[in-house]
Amino acid sequence: MKKGNVLVGQSGGPTAVINSSLAGVFKTAMDRGFNKVYGMRYGIQGFMDEQYVDLSDYIKNELDLELLKRTPSAFLGTCRYKMPAIHEDRSVYERIFELLDKMDIEVFIYIGGNDSMDTIKKLSDYAILTGAKQRFIGCPKTIDNDLALTDHTPGFGSAAKYIGTSTKEIIRDCLGFSYQKKNVTVIEVMGRNAGWLTGATALSKGEDCDGPDMIFLPEVPFDLKKFKEQVEKLLKKKDVVVAAVSEGIKDANGTYICQLTAGSESVDAFGHIQMTGTASFLANYIHDELGCKTRAVEFSTLQRAAAHLASRIDINEAFMVGGAAVKAADEGISGVMVVIDRLSDDPYQSTTGVYDVHRIANDEKLVPRNWINKDGNYVTDEFIDYVRPLIQGDYQPMMVGGLPRHLTMNSKGYKDLYNADK
Amino acid sequence: MKKGNVLVGQSGGPTAVINSSLAGVFKTAMDRGFNKVYGMRYGIQGFMDEQYVDLSDYIKNELDLELLKRTPSAFLGTCRYKMPAIHEDRSVYERIFELLDKMDIEVFIYIGGNDSMDTIKKLSDYAILTGAKQRFIGCPKTIDNDLALTDHTPGFGSAAKYIGTSTKEIIRDCLGFSYQKKNVTVIEVMGRNAGWLTGATALSKGEDCDGPDMIFLPEVPFDLKKFKEQVEKLLKKKDVVVAAVSEGIKDANGTYICQLTAGSESVDAFGHIQMTGTASFLANYIHDELGCKTRAVEFSTLQRAAAHLASRIDINEAFMVGGAAVKAADEGISGVMVVIDRLSDDPYQSTTGVYDVHRIANDEKLVPRNWINKDGNYVTDEFIDYVRPLIQGDYQPMMVGGLPRHLTMNSKGYKDLYNADK
Repeated sequence: MKKGNVLVGQSGGPTAVINSSLAGVFKTAMDRGFNKVYGMRYGIQGFMDEQYVDLSDYIKNELDLELLKRTPSAFLGTCRYKMPAIHEDRSVYERIFELLDKMDIEVFIYIGGNDSMDTIKKLSDYAILTGAKQRFIGCPKTIDNDLALTDHTPGFGSAAKYIGTSTKEIIRDCLGFSYQKKNVTVIEVMGRNAGWLTGATALSKGEDCDGPDMIFLPEVPFDLKKFKEQVEKLLKKKDVVVAAVSEGIKDANGTYICQLTAGSESVDAFGHIQMTGTASFLANYIHDELGCKTRAVEFSTLQRAAAHLASRIDINEAFMVGGAAVKAADEGISGVMVVIDRLSDDPYQSTTGVYDVHRIANDEKLVPRNWINKDGNYVTDEFIDYVRPLIQGDYQPMMVGGLPRHLTMNSKGYKDLYNADK
Repeated sequence: MKKGNVLVGQSGGPTAVINSSLAGVFKTAMDRGFNKVYGMRYGIQGFMDEQYVDLSDYIKNELDLELLKRTPSAFLGTCRYKMPAIHEDRSVYERIFELLDKMDIEVFIYIGGNDSMDTIKKLSDYAILTGAKQRFIGCPKTIDNDLALTDHTPGFGSAAKYIGTSTKEIIRDCLGFSYQKKNVTVIEVMGRNAGWLTGATALSKGEDCDGPDMIFLPEVPFDLKKFKEQVEKLLKKKDVVVAAVSEGIKDANGTYICQLTAGSESVDAFGHIQMTGTASFLANYIHDELGCKTRAVEFSTLQRAAAHLASRIDINEAFMVGGAAVKAADEGISGVMVVIDRLSDDPYQSTTGVYDVHRIANDEKLVPRNWINKDGNYVTDEFIDYVRPLIQGDYQPMMVGGLPRHLTMNSKGYKDLYNADK
């Protein structure tokens, strides 16, 4: 029997390897004899506006596939869209399934995090309710590593590798400058509720680097006064102090540290209340209290986009879960998310499994309290042992003109480039 | 006749390749039969406190030398110290030359930027005045690329490669998110007076990327209102707008843009006036005026420390100028800075020369006005053609445990590491 088509979408915050999962979906769907692989532009939101592409128009050969694996951010574009509950608004579902039928879609794959798994859950529920033929599979993706039931999420390893490397380079920079000058650097890392990424700054610790002096995760309440005392104590012993903080650290009352500035009504030139970053707030606070030179560093979107420093394990696993999603659907499964199971640490080995998406959607996996030290200002060796295998190996960018080359939907040919406006 | 010793120091802001010059000095001094190579800790300032090391204690084999070439920031530590004029305070000079004599120093090499060349100038002048035997050679180093008479400076190429790559990754990230949402990103790049680094964001422009929409260098006065109008106009045509700005852009009155916030008395929780960054100021301004989502990204110290993305050309040239400094001194020359002469663009070839340091010290090379477009909001093709060869090639980091390994003065052995405090 001739197989139908596959529809794949990307959703939520981009990562360095989300396109490797897209490549895995495409490759496996072609290998398994599906007819076409369509990509939703900007996730389910764009799809409802009938925005989609035929991926074979862009992935024409193995080089394209390899470029796609090395291209950060979402090739197809993503969205942040929460599906209404089925009983709230059936029209949204009717619209989607009408399109799926029209396009002869047999398999619907959504690459994303918590919210995206909610979409898979609702669509597969609706299919069961209505007896629709499509299968719905979730493919995990998030730098935050906060999805339940999977050992870790694709995207996390590369972000952790970037964060570990950059932290080491920043510490090195601080040390080069420290003669008779005390300086304190506060590094801000993404993570509103889960501290996985911030903990990854500890990867910089090793034979050639002491790592950050302190690491604060959102899992433990942050005490501003205690922080100052710890910095003060450290400055008595050493000239350079480096602290890493999650953007989402909160005090004991549950107030985000980054809101403390706004709370005290910092206004800019236009009377606009400023949401100063956490690191910048803490750097100013320490400068003010202790008088030493301070600096705030934010990794910003670079931590999720730095494909030039992706982890080989991560790119390969992202590709693997894409393929596993197609395989599961092809075997008749629906309403699941693909997970990664860790088989061993050294040598590191992993495989894929699937879990009912109802058990995963809208859940949030935090760093276990016993992987954070008693004082709440560092991660334990267990944490490092868990993360270390995920940052191993490199995936050499394809360098053109001195920069990594990416695959994009509107990559220009020589001719276009030379005629482009300056 | 037996040769004496070489003394080498590093000064000013660290770069990704300043240690490659140190490696070049060490290697050539050994090859040419000098006795010892001493390294000043924290430049001339630490040296006056008799802080120095014997480099052979740290560079014991070829692997160490290769690691040193790949280690960012200043291995020896740097300082920012301005020598007094000779007639102002001879005691400083007497102190230094007393130490040089005591240590049997024949050659004094200082790796640094404008200020460091001022040190070389004054020391070599003093040697002439007093008939001292030592030779003094400057070795160029600065990410800012603002030294006169040399085609470019070691450190610039690697910073430009990092900035071009990261800009491309940030633009890619912005595009992945843009469905029916306008967003404006402002990227802030180092450079108080010279726009070389900010111009390097244009390297991201190519077949797979449009590059930033606008680039503002400190060489041209910045017009806030015109900036807003340009952004507004661009947002009518496209959803994603990216602007790159130098930290040092100023308005027509010479006021730094980053001071505009402070000028209107933005205060934090502690009544402390905040020196908000330029990008953050502009992002807030655009958000306030146009209501769209905005984001500020600062490359911060990463742009000078990211050895993991160093340019091969740059590392090799940094090594070459270190060697050339020793060679010049060995041939009896003093009071000069080594420069890089570009021989050809394609294939790129360069060689070294020397110039009287009096012609270089305290001068500042800006981006020529005709390498910036008429509107003052982009660099020209001539600019790109000048920079492109300098970012070519990679120098693969030596990866250990998933991160680049560095050579450091207190690298711990296995034993130390396992006994270290957690």
